Order: sequence, then structure tokens, then C-alpha cells
Amino acid sequence: MTRDARYDVLFEPVRIGPVTAPNRFYQVPHASGMTNALPRVRAAFRETKAEGGWGVICTGACSIDPTSDDTPLPFATLWDRNDIRAHALMTEAVHRHGSLAGVELWHGGAAVMNRASRLPPLSPSGIPWMATHVGFMGNLRPRVMDKTDIRDVLRWQAEGAGKARSAGFDIVYVYAGMGYLGYEFLLPEYNHRCDEYGGPIENRIRFVRELLEVTREAVGTDCGVALRVSLEELRGRPGTHQESEAHELISLLSDHADLFDVKMDSSPTDCSASRFTGEGSHEPVIDFVKRMTDKPVVGVGRFTSPDTMVSQIRRGVLDLIGGARPSIADPFLPNKIREGRIEEIRECIGCNICISSWHDGVPVRCTQNPTAGEEWRRGWHPERIAPARKREKVLIVGGGPSGLECALTAARQGHEVTLADAGTSWGGRLSFEKTLPGLAAWNRVVDYRLGRLADLPNVSMYLESPLGVDDILELAPDHLILATGAAWTRMLYSTLEIPVGQLEHPAVYTPDDIAAGRLPAGPVLVFDFDNYYYGGVLAEHLAAKGMEVSYVTPAGQASAWTIMTNELPLVHRALLQRRIPVTTLQTVTGFDGEMATLAHVFTGEETAMHCRSILIVGLRRPRSALREALDLRRAEVEAAGIASVTTIGDALAPGAIAHAVHSGHKAARELGQRDGHRLYLRDTPITDCEPGFEQADAAE
Amino acid sequence: MTRDARYDVLFEPVRIGPVTAPNRFYQVPHASGMTNALPRVRAAFRETKAEGGWGVICTGACSIDPTSDDTPLPFATLWDRNDIRAHALMTEAVHRHGSLAGVELWHGGAAVMNRASRLPPLSPSGIPWMATHVGFMGNLRPRVMDKTDIRDVLRWQAEGAGKARSAGFDIVYVYAGMGYLGYEFLLPEYNHRCDEYGGPIENRIRFVRELLEVTREAVGTDCGVALRVSLEELRGRPGTHQESEAHELISLLSDHADLFDVKMDSSPTDCSASRFTGEGSHEPVIDFVKRMTDKPVVGVGRFTSPDTMVSQIRRGVLDLIGGARPSIADPFLPNKIREGRIEEIRECIGCNICISSWHDGVPVRCTQNPTAGEEWRRGWHPERIAPARKREKVLIVGGGPSGLECALTAARQGHEVTLADAGTSWGGRLSFEKTLPGLAAWNRVVDYRLGRLADLPNVSMYLESPLGVDDILELAPDHLILATGAAWTRMLYSTLEIPVGQLEHPAVYTPDDIAAGRLPAGPVLVFDFDNYYYGGVLAEHLAAKGMEVSYVTPAGQASAWTIMTNELPLVHRALLQRRIPVTTLQTVTGFDGEMATLAHVFTGEETAMHCRSILIVGLRRPRSALREALDLRRAEVEAAGIASVTTIGDALAPGAIAHAVHSGHKAARELGQRDGHRLYLRDTPITDCEPGFEQADAAE
Repeated sequence: MTRDARYDVLFEPVRIGPVTAPNRFYQVPHASGMTNALPRVRAAFRETKAEGGWGVICTGACSIDPTSDDTPLPFATLWDRNDIRAHALMTEAVHRHGSLAGVELWHGGAAVMNRASRLPPLSPSGIPWMATHVGFMGNLRPRVMDKTDIRDVLRWQAEGAGKARSAGFDIVYVYAGMGYLGYEFLLPEYNHRCDEYGGPIENRIRFVRELLEVTREAVGTDCGVALRVSLEELRGRPGTHQESEAHELISLLSDHADLFDVKMDSSPTDCSASRFTGEGSHEPVIDFVKRMTDKPVVGVGRFTSPDTMVSQIRRGVLDLIGGARPSIADPFLPNKIREGRIEEIRECIGCNICISSWHDGVPVRCTQNPTAGEEWRRGWHPERIAPARKREKVLIVGGGPSGLECALTAARQGHEVTLADAGTSWGGRLSFEKTLPGLAAWNRVVDYRLGRLADLPNVSMYLESPLGVDDILELAPDHLILATGAAWTRMLYSTLEIPVGQLEHPAVYTPDDIAAGRLPAGPVLVFDFDNYYYGGVLAEHLAAKGMEVSYVTPAGQASAWTIMTNELPLVHRALLQRRIPVTTLQTVTGFDGEMATLAHVFTGEETAMHCRSILIVGLRRPRSALREALDLRRAEVEAAGIASVTTIGDALAPGAIAHAVHSGHKAARELGQRDGHRLYLRDTPITDCEPGFEQADAAE
Repeated sequence: MTRDARYDVLFEPVRIGPVTAPNRFYQVPHASGMTNALPRVRAAFRETKAEGGWGVICTGACSIDPTSDDTPLPFATLWDRNDIRAHALMTEAVHRHGSLAGVELWHGGAAVMNRASRLPPLSPSGIPWMATHVGFMGNLRPRVMDKTDIRDVLRWQAEGAGKARSAGFDIVYVYAGMGYLGYEFLLPEYNHRCDEYGGPIENRIRFVRELLEVTREAVGTDCGVALRVSLEELRGRPGTHQESEAHELISLLSDHADLFDVKMDSSPTDCSASRFTGEGSHEPVIDFVKRMTDKPVVGVGRFTSPDTMVSQIRRGVLDLIGGARPSIADPFLPNKIREGRIEEIRECIGCNICISSWHDGVPVRCTQNPTAGEEWRRGWHPERIAPARKREKVLIVGGGPSGLECALTAARQGHEVTLADAGTSWGGRLSFEKTLPGLAAWNRVVDYRLGRLADLPNVSMYLESPLGVDDILELAPDHLILATGAAWTRMLYSTLEIPVGQLEHPAVYTPDDIAAGRLPAGPVLVFDFDNYYYGGVLAEHLAAKGMEVSYVTPAGQASAWTIMTNELPLVHRALLQRRIPVTTLQTVTGFDGEMATLAHVFTGEETAMHCRSILIVGLRRPRSALREALDLRRAEVEAAGIASVTTIGDALAPGAIAHAVHSGHKAARELGQRDGHRLYLRDTPITDCEPGFEQADAAE
């Protein structure tokens, strides 16, 4: 295939100070959750994107000093010689593919708690960032930086830049975004200083300008110097000489950076989920930047469409197409565009499981790309897979996310794959969920796999084909995979968190009832202790059908777990918009058809709520009937020559779609093996040098 | 000093199978948060307790296999050779002092999420533990263990026991508590199995019994085999042959363990805070155990009084006095009893900052003992400190927790210390806080330090002594320490988490007003965005004075951060008992003396609430007037020969009392130095062997 010439512009090189990006695909710094504790995992994760054509690959935020410690979040460090060597694994890997490597030097200021170092966080004026929410907060407020502290941070930035150069990075960042130290100086609410670092915007940018200056001095002409800055708040504030303070900032700093990496101010707006926000959502905030500087500009927007990317360039919004989530979902996105294989792009679905990984303190996971984070430890490549030594017959029962991924991965190995599903469409749970408010993009999980499967000659797919034990024995595959999904239950838990059995009443529904088109009589009480998106989105769905709906949860917020995916505030807004009252900290204990009994999760205090039906979004359990039937006829299964029977996805352990896809991929890779947990390598930090910080200084 | 003979019983040796504990002081397994990533930190932390006289020192839970992975909580592992070597650092350190070393082998089952391994958690019947709360939860439900899985876990336990023996441990645990895998088999709500592992109690204990058997087989006569089991739920269930299922369990397993380590079922009941629970609170649940077995029994109960300990032995409740929190607060508790220095015991205050450290994912912190976790990395010993090379004059302004700790630590080095406070009593914030409901034990922070300071001849202490710059210049110390504390402000934040200035109205109060005896007119709205204990406890305090009080917070729960200290449910119960309504997810935006305006933190939706006064428990800011006055007269300060001026505690960075004590200790240790953040060593994992799990098997 050849590419359309209109995409050629994406493959033009771009100068970034003394270095040159080979094309316009720029993987901006984003959290990998891998840290210096997993240096080989990290290097392989980043390398795969370079191999896939990203011209610049940046690593995530690197603390320049122990006074910036985001524990327990999985941040990286550039403190000592061991750290330099750990990062060098990544830069060498990126360079092998002709790409540039960038590093986001970082000081968290008052946005971190220094839980490991136990040092008071630094801040311009002692005002904590995000003080009122408790998601990731602690009890230690920041201290006020004096002039010596400012000089210290500038020195650490210079030392960090020197270490970055030693580690082989080509682009070194100054970071003034997302509530971190540089950003705190920019906003007057956090910067109350009366000295030359506070007051008018010219003063408030001084610290950032000095960070840029010392960085430039430290890296000389070896590296480009990038400024990453959040512009959302500043764009809303009128400037003295320019339209806004954001305009003034870019104008004042234009000569000091080789590249502007521009973004929003907080994780929920910067990395917003597809459920509430579309592609290119940053544009209204950052569209002016190129008018204020002749330096290249990079920004993100969950770009997966090459036409949108070209439009960003042609309309003068961006010079470089920043990618974080799309580069995780498809490390080979640039190469696929370059080679005219656009339909092969594994598009990010915007579910934000990746950012939830960061909040969970673990290496990045991706719903679309099960190989993310597994490149080194399991040897999984997103595009390549070794052909099977022996072509075998694989029968997969169930065509949801795990079954589809398993089928695709087994087929790519050359196996003869049969995929059967009892339903009328592929996608399992997504067949219904994709129709719910905001979830259409999630069906890319299904669309991508159906598209790839259609290209493979060794796959047979059958809908409306429920299979029983006799059918399976007749088909007699070498390997049988059960991907029969899970069913929602009416099970309740006590306020002591002990399961207390099903809630029995004809007007008690589960999400499966709703998916099957059985609509409850209103008013409906949606009782959600699943706590992820589904309870909230089903409440929206029923309200959109004109029902009176209320939402009850034992958690402190609606869809409480969506704080992990940056969706929580928007879930509350969506429920308010549909006029769905939210009741928190309550668990349902009974229902008589007219009144639900609620108990406070902590006090047990009982209240009643009128409703005619209850939808419980609680516990799912595997659909295991087929598995159990097979177990009863194990001898026949063996006699039929079925060498392995493996349960995957929700049928094994109900989880998010990301879990199902990973499970399906893993089963195909490990066909017929047991003990899959031992089939990965355990990474270890680089510890060649003596531990201690003093080492770092000596490395300059 | 000599000890009272009535304490002699505490120093009798106790046989634990083939090994013998030198006395009855038994540091039960407890989380240190140190993990195998910080092996030297961990070894030194545990060693200090052995040095202090604890006869048995156990390390925290050690995963026996990657299928049990509690990431991001800081769990330890015994998977491979590197792990063995990491633990050997600890056992060697403990043995140096003649104590025994124990290890809690652990499989988390359905109570962990396996976020790092990405393997479905194991469980008897697929029922998640703690399913409805979201504090530490994720979206992956457990899978059901088949017979092969059970055999696998037994094999991993045996392998783990073998590795533990190789690492030098003397006592090896089987763990069946706190919702983890063994425990899940014990309760019918989690164990629905129809095979020989489910049904009657005889079957439900089978898995635990088999774990004990394989452990015994693996360690032979080298180690004692301990069973740690939670009995709270089982004690409440009538048995068939005995009073309760807990009785039956001990009776059935009596021959299979060398030691019973008995405890409660969940962190909030097992490790309950002094605010709500007294010393020895486990006794009603575990008092029967010794009647059912002739094996030694250990249990905890935040024991700090030697008389209580003796009573536990004499009354036949326990054979070994288990300690977790008291051993952190005072590693030398046994030696102090042995040597008749009872008044020197640094008693645990039961604030549970230690368990919050685990929840925070960091090494353990202690309010009373600032050296906990700093033994290796900063070289701090809880009892010993090097004498100062030069005896200097140290003036400390402010006698709260940080000032007292700083004075004590400086005096122990031999400096000539003057401590001055403007108030009428020592203790700073605690002078008032100790009078609030449930907080009396917290004043041990003050009492301990006043007691120790009274014994030191080189300390002068002055109350009612406000010091100005002129006073300080006249006193002309070599080093000046400012411990002037912090003041609560009336500052509010917007729903976008940006500070928006003070709430101005004469009827707006801060906690400082309440401490000063200024009582607001009711009804009072307590607006808490500090989110730790203080807002809740002040609401209780005002209600106890007969006021009508309501509690409002932007968080999802009252005193939301107290989930970290195991207090959250009890805070809600305390507020209910005082008839204080709780309104969550709301922030105060205005007040006219009659009505407060509230806005929903996520939707911005406005509501009104009637009140005549508002108490804002929000942001504290340092009391910095003296510091600023000194800064203006820096030349005179230097001329007076004051070599250093250091701000500590809340006056530097407002925090919890634990932060203040640590800050005061650190300042005294680093008198006159800057750059304290560089004065600690960075620990690194043991990585001598190639990474990978296969290594582990080869080590047997």
C-alpha cells in the first residue's frame, strides 16, 4: 500500500534547537508508571514506539531532587548515577530507531507530599495545590521558598539537565504545568510573593525563565530545551499587553525555549475521557501559541485520525502532533500512516485506563493494546508474533473483547481459528454498552479486531451459534477457549462488607436485563456498588428514556472509581443534567416493591426511599455453565483430543474491558501452557553504583 | 534502677516448637512499608527492636508467589534468590541481638488486585473481599480456584517456607487472617465450595490445615510454625461441637501449629485508634484461645503498660505479649521494663499514623518515635545520639510537639538548651486538642518529652515567655530554632480547587478561636476541608457543649482522610451519636450571618443552609511574624553571633503532629546545617542474581 500524499506533511523533519525530529510524530512526556525500579520494562515500552515511527519519544516526569517526591505515585528520578544508567537504557533504545529522546525534568512543588523523603514540600507561598480533595492528599502543607531555596531548585534543574545529557537525552524539559512547582509560580492564587518572583506576569514567569536559562547553560548545544506549560487558567485571564496572560507568557519566553509543549492545567481537562470529550479538545486553549512564537509547538488531543493531524498542521495550530494515549494504544501509528495502512491503526478509545494505571501506582495498561508494558517482561510485541511451531485447531466460544483478541492473536500465529458466539453481533458486553451515552468510541475495541480478523484467511467466525458440549466434542479442536463472559447478579453486601445473598423481588433488575431490553417501571433506584462507569451510565440511559431515576451508592461519590480515569466530576455533572439525584454512603438492605430500605454504610442508620424497581449494578459472576458441563464430561473431552481448555476474560475473572483483552491475548500467546504467571521476567533497578545522592553530584 | 519482681514473668523464655523465644515480648508481623526495595532500611528498623529487647521480631507479610500482588501497597516478596538475600539482611540483624526472626508468608487471594502481575486474583469461590468500598479497590474480580490451583498454592507455600528457612527465619507463618486467601476459605460467605474445602467448619479449615502441613514439612525441625488467624467473625458464629466456630478452629488445628497468633478480622478493628478504643480491645474475641490449645498464644492490644501485660499472662489470656504499634513507638520498651526504667517508655499514642503510612505506600512513620524508618538512611537511633562536638547554646521559641522534641534531642547531645513558650502550658496545639473527645492519649507526646527533659540538667524551660527580636538578640544563642506553630485561616477554595480568599464575616470562626474559648452561636456549620480528625472532633466538641451543629465537607466522607488511620466508620458513628448531620461533596461559598451558601464540588449546583456561625477547619498557615521580624534585622542577628536560624514544625510547613516531631528531631540532629535532604542514604534492592522467578525454584 502507498500513502496518500496529503499525509506527507506529517513526515517532514522539524528542528528543535540544535536537534532535529525526523517527523512530526511526537510522543510527549507521559507517565508510564514504570519508574527507575523497572528500567528494562520502561526502555522496551518506549523503544517500541520509536520502532513504530514516533520521531520523538519522551519519558515521563523525572524528579530532579529528593525534595520532589510523589510517592506513592510511580514517578521517575534523575538523582544519582544509577538513575543516569537506568535512563540510558531508554535513550539507547530510542536512538536505535533514529528517534530523539526527551526527558521531562520535574519538581512537584506543593503538588506532591514528599511522603518518602519526609521533607516539607516547596512552594512559592505555602499554598497547597488541590487542597480540598482527598484523593491523593496527605496532611503536610508546603513550606515557603526563600531565595536560597529558589537558587537550590535552579541548581538542581541544572544538575538534572547535566545528568539528562549524560544519560543521552536529546530534548530536556522545563516543566511548568499541572500544578507542579513552575506552574505554582505562574498563578497569583499560589504565588503571593512580594519579591521579584511575584506580582505582575513578568515577575511570575521569572522562575520559569531562570529554569530555562540554567537548563540551556547545562546542556549547551547538545540538546534542545523544551518548555511544557499549562495554559488553561492563564488563557482565561486578560493580559496587560496581550489578549491574555497565556499570550504574554509565550511572548515573553519565546526566546528562551526551543520548543513549546502546551497543555491544559489538570489531569481531568488535559487527559479527558472520550465519554465526555472529543478529539482535539485542547485547541481552544492553545490555538494562539504559534502566533506568539516562531519556535515549534507541540500539543495533544487524543489524535488518531491522520486527517485531523494534517489539519492541525495546515491550520497552524501545531507543528508537531503530540501523542500520549494514541501512542500507547498503537505504538505503530506513524508507520501505519506512512505505509498507507490507515485501517490497521489501533485507535485509542479514550477510556483512560492508562491514566488509572498511574493513579493505581503501576505500569501503564491499555484497553486496546494488551502488549503495553509487557514488551520486556513477557516479550510481547504489538505487531509481531512468532508463528506457531505447529498449526493447531483453536475453538473460541464467545466473541466479546477477550474472545476477539484471543482469536486475532491465535490467528496471527497461524492457527486454524474458529470463533463462535451465541448472539447476533460481535462484541459481547460492548454490543449493548456502545449504545450508551458517551461510550460509542469504546467499540473501537471490537471494530479494530473485526477489521483485522477479516483480513486473515485462517479464521472462521459464526454468530448465533450457541455451542454445547456435544457440539464441542464434535468440532474436536486441539485447544478450546471459553470466553463466555459474566452475568450481573442481584447479590448484596452488608455494611460490614460481607455478602448477604440476593435481593429477591420481581422488580429487581440487573444490567443484563436492561441490555436485553427489559425496562423497569419508574421510579427506578439504581444501586451501584460496582463503582466504575456502568452504574452512572445506566442511570443516564434510563433517564434518557424518560424514567424517573435516582442513584444510590455506598461510595462517597457517584461512579467513585472514575476518579482514577479523570471522569468523576463529569459523571456528577451528567447525572445532574439528567436530574438524577445522587445519594452516597448508603447500601440497599431491602425492597418491598414500593420502598427500598437503605442503611448508612458506616452508622447502619436506616432510611427508606420510594421506588417501583431497583437496578443493582453490583457483582458480576462468570457464566460458567459450559465450563461446568465440560468438567463433568472430562473423559470425553480428553478422548476427543482436546489438549487444553482455557477460560479467559470475564468468564474467568470479571473485570474491565482492559482485563478481558489482556486475558485473551495472554491465552493465545500461552496456548496449552499452564503457570502463565511464571512466564514473565522480573525487572530490577540498576544498582551498579553505591546508593546515595552524593554520587549524583560526582557524575557531572 | 532495678525492676519490680512482678514483671519477671515477662522475661521468661517461651518454647515455640523447635525454637525458644528469649522472653515474652513478641513483635508480631506488621507492615513496615519498606518492602524488598529497601532491604537495609528494613533490616535496621527491625534490628533496632531486637536491640531494644523484643524476643521475637517478625517481618511483614511476604508474598509467596506473583499471583499475590498487593501493588501499590508496599508488600514484601519471597519469590527469588534476591528476595532471600534481602530478607537475610534482616534475620542476621535480629540474630545479632539474640532474638528470633519470624516471617509471615502470605497469599492475598481475593483481597488483592494483582495490579502489577495482571493475573486474576485467586479465591475459593470468586467472591471479592470488601467489594463495595472503593478505598483500595479496582475493577478486577477474583477467579475461582480449582484443585490444581489449591495444589499450586500449597506448593508455593512450601517453597516460600523453604526460602524463609534459607533466609534464616526461625518462625514461619501460615496466614489466615484479614480477608486474605486462607481466611477466605474459613468464612462461608466467601467459600461456597461444594468439595471437601467447603461446607462445615471441618472442611473450611482444610486448606489452612494443609498450608500448615506443607510448611511443617518444608522447615522440618529448623523453624517453628505459626498460624495467624482472625477470629472476630468466627467467634460470633455458634459451633456444632464447641461454643463458636472460632473455638472449633483452634481445637481442630491445635496439633498443627507451634504457635497461635490470634487477631481481629479487619484493619479498623484489629488496629483501632485510641480515639475510639482502649488498650487490650481484642480480649473479648481471643480470650478463649488458650483454653482450646496447649500451644503458646500471642495477641496484640496496643499494650504499653507492663502491669497490663503481666495481667494478660497471669489471667491466662496470652503467653506472649504481642506488639506492633508499641514496638514502633518504643523499640526499647522491653529493655526499659527489664531495667526498671518504666517512666522512660515512649508510649504509643494510638493515632495510627503508622498504619496510614502503609496505606500511603511508604515506610512506617510514628508520631512518638521520629527515628522509625530513619535508622539506616539517616543513621538515627531512638535511644542513642552522639554527643555534640561542641556544646552550644540553643534557643528554641515554642514548646509544642516540634519544639519539645527539638529541645530534648539537642539536650541529649549535650547542648545548653533554652526553651521558651508564650503560653501557660507546654504542648502547643495539644494543650487544647488533648481535651477533645478521645484525644487524651495523644498528650503522651508532650508528657514523654516533659518527663525526659526534667531529667536533663542542661535545659532551661520558660512558660509565659513571648520572645521578640530584642529578647533573642540579648539571649544571643549560637542557634535559634523557631517553633511558633501555625494558625488556622478563614481561606476558602473554589470548586475548581483554586484559593479564593478569606470568608469575611464576624461569625466565621477558626479552630484557634475555639481553642481560645470563643464559642460560636448555634446553629454552627462546621466546614471541614482539612479532612483529617480535627473538623470531626471539633464538631463533637461543640455538640457536647449543647450546640446545634452540622458538618459540611467537600470530601465524600466526614473526616475523609481518617480512612488512612482506620477511624473513618467510627467518626461517622460518633457524629451520628451527637446528632450532627453530615453533608458531603459541598463547599461553602458565602455566608450572610443567617444562611451559608454551598456549592456542589463537581456540579457547582448551589444550595443554602441555615446557621448563625461557621467554623472553618481548612488551611493552616505558619505563624511567621517573628521570623519576618528577624529577617528584617538580619545584620543584627549575625552580629549577635547567632550562627543559624531554623524554622521547624508547623511554623515551617503545617502538618500532622508526626510531621512536627520529625521536623524538630531533624533540626536538632542537623543543627546549623543546610541541605538536610541530602543527609540520607538511598537504599537499593538486592540484585545480585539475575532477575526472574525461575531463580527462586532453583534456590530450594
